[in-house]
Amino acid sequence: MSSTATTLAPELAVSEWFNTPAPLTLAGLRGRPVLLHTFQLLCPGCVAESIPQVQRIERVFGSTDLQVIGIHTVFEHHAAMTPVTLKAFLHEYRIRHPVGVDRADPASDTPLTMQRFALRGTPSSVLIGRDGTILHHVFGVEDDIAVGARIAMALSAPAPHALRASASTDEQGCAGGRCEVAAGGQSTD
Amino acid sequence: MSSTATTLAPELAVSEWFNTPAPLTLAGLRGRPVLLHTFQLLCPGCVAESIPQVQRIERVFGSTDLQVIGIHTVFEHHAAMTPVTLKAFLHEYRIRHPVGVDRADPASDTPLTMQRFALRGTPSSVLIGRDGTILHHVFGVEDDIAVGARIAMALSAPAPHALRASASTDEQGCAGGRCEVAAGGQSTD
Amino acid sequence: MSSTATTLAPELAVSEWFNTPAPLTLAGLRGRPVLLHTFQLLCPGCVAESIPQVQRIERVFGSTDLQVIGIHTVFEHHAAMTPVTLKAFLHEYRIRHPVGVDRADPASDTPLTMQRFALRGTPSSVLIGRDGTILHHVFGVEDDIAVGARIAMALSAPAPHALRASASTDEQGCAGGRCEVAAGGQSTD
Amino acid sequence: MSSTATTLAPELAVSEWFNTPAPLTLAGLRGRPVLLHTFQLLCPGCVAESIPQVQRIERVFGSTDLQVIGIHTVFEHHAAMTPVTLKAFLHEYRIRHPVGVDRADPASDTPLTMQRFALRGTPSSVLIGRDGTILHHVFGVEDDIAVGARIAMALSAPAPHALRASASTDEQGCAGGRCEVAAGGQSTD
Repeated sequence: MSSTATTLAPELAVSEWFNTPAPLTLAGLRGRPVLLHTFQLLCPGCVAESIPQVQRIERVFGSTDLQVIGIHTVFEHHAAMTPVTLKAFLHEYRIRHPVGVDRADPASDTPLTMQRFALRGTPSSVLIGRDGTILHHVFGVEDDIAVGARIAMALSAPAPHALRASASTDEQGCAGGRCEVAAGGQSTD
Repeated sequence: MSSTATTLAPELAVSEWFNTPAPLTLAGLRGRPVLLHTFQLLCPGCVAESIPQVQRIERVFGSTDLQVIGIHTVFEHHAAMTPVTLKAFLHEYRIRHPVGVDRADPASDTPLTMQRFALRGTPSSVLIGRDGTILHHVFGVEDDIAVGARIAMALSAPAPHALRASASTDEQGCAGGRCEVAAGGQSTD
Repeated sequence: MSSTATTLAPELAVSEWFNTPAPLTLAGLRGRPVLLHTFQLLCPGCVAESIPQVQRIERVFGSTDLQVIGIHTVFEHHAAMTPVTLKAFLHEYRIRHPVGVDRADPASDTPLTMQRFALRGTPSSVLIGRDGTILHHVFGVEDDIAVGARIAMALSAPAPHALRASASTDEQGCAGGRCEVAAGGQSTD
Repeated sequence: MSSTATTLAPELAVSEWFNTPAPLTLAGLRGRPVLLHTFQLLCPGCVAESIPQVQRIERVFGSTDLQVIGIHTVFEHHAAMTPVTLKAFLHEYRIRHPVGVDRADPASDTPLTMQRFALRGTPSSVLIGRDGTILHHVFGVEDDIAVGARIAMALSAPAPHALRASASTDEQGCAGGRCEVAAGGQSTD
């Protein structure tokens, strides 16, 4: 279900954002822990389990600097899960955190962020540390207690000031070879 | 939450059917109890509560002559809940019973079947007796025990052979005045 | 999990009653449907599942003539589940319906009512019809919808006036051979 | 529902232990985080919520040095919740961690540990740090995510070697004035 890796998280590839005034990048968030929650709006396990869990996470950690980001990683039923439907879905389910539409890959049913993180399906969650490395990723839903523990540990890590300073340059090459490496490193779970 | 009425159920108005080789009509089902479950695919209460309840009903009453029918009564976010999305939704949620798309009313956001039954929103359920009368309707979700009891009572009623014989003629005028009366009769809950 | 039988229910054997001004007998209740719920206060499945279900049943069928009876059928940890502890348990769990302590059998760990009904453990439920016959019995907990349906059917049966008149005589021989027959008849589930 | 205090936890007062070969003291556990879970076996909220949560905690943190301790703090229905009944309860609910019977106070219905920690009722939980101070206490049950986060933080604290050495002397005066202070300090929640 889960694995850990000490690799730097690849950058997000997002074609459209909701619930945020400006696009987000992991590079720009360096210094803060990030919880990436990837889902599809017609995925029963996402609706019944992982989205409610993310909302519980937001309640508990609302006063911390944890950044929760949803990524709509459509890899099936593409015509059924358009951004128009996603927008209404976010409204009906009262999802307030930033949600990005994973950028389609013309050559594949699997969109780009999903490829870069080597995600196996939805729901998947990736916890990214203040230094931009992947602390944990999981396909499916883990126990709330374990999730709370992991996020607390991510929050308690000291902010890596040096890394944060170089974030904007790190970002540049992300769509290239490094994402491939990261994806390869995660494919062992 | 609920009310009972001794009025004849109005006819369905459906623009497209899923999970059935041929369109269904209440008139054609006269003689069998019918559970109408009306929902929207982006309605959280439908997905979390009423659809699982309908699936439990199907398991318990699968060997009886109860007919379960879903009606997708979209009255908001019309562009987000198209038949294309509904079809994928039915696949992902493993909904096997016949589901009809409530026919749009060009003059209203509320589709026609919803208007005829005077439904207040989704989820709503209407239990129709063997004689075609409305035994019970409810906005929201009732206790499973009560639901089981009501359906058992509907099933135990004797089949009304005379009514069944005249069903096809009854159906003709259904879109006219009688539906209006029925809707009026139900608006007191 | 369940079976049906057309045998007359054996009589209860109770050493102490709670929540009733006078002892109850099935013979005395002839004419009304009876739901017997047998449990032990230290049985996790009883506390977590069957007792809450019985309380839901009471809410739904509170205005009918269904009689709910609990029987505390202790067959293990006898020193731990005394009537003193049972009394506090009923108070804390807000159990308001009549509860009888199954009468101990000096020759067995299994108390008498449990033997007579050939119950396999706790929780078990026995639904008894207006005519005093066993309509259904189950070891474990069934789906609420099915339970609601069964009770509705039991309630809809006509009251058997002739049987009711002879109830007090029927009762006499109940502790004898007939209970043995009933127990044998139910041992096939 | 909860409060934090920087006071040293008072010592346990236990008349009988289960699931441990030798009595436990908080002083003897200095250096390890301790989760005290106080309950009564006839407390519905304990059985339905806090005990299952403690068991989830044990699953997630089973490989850490967190010590989970249950304290049976009977403050009502004393005759109904004896150690004999507790022993059977622990067996039936598969509670494997050490459980102590809170020592009765001849002058009060409230037992001694409960008094010392100024607990308001059951279930209550007290999280004690490696240095023996109370990190958190709560009456009722908190969200699993928050509980997981708190325990992770307690586990991540460095072990206080100096404090651990002096633990046995610290323990002596615990039943005296210091417990009063601790109780006073916690009464503000």
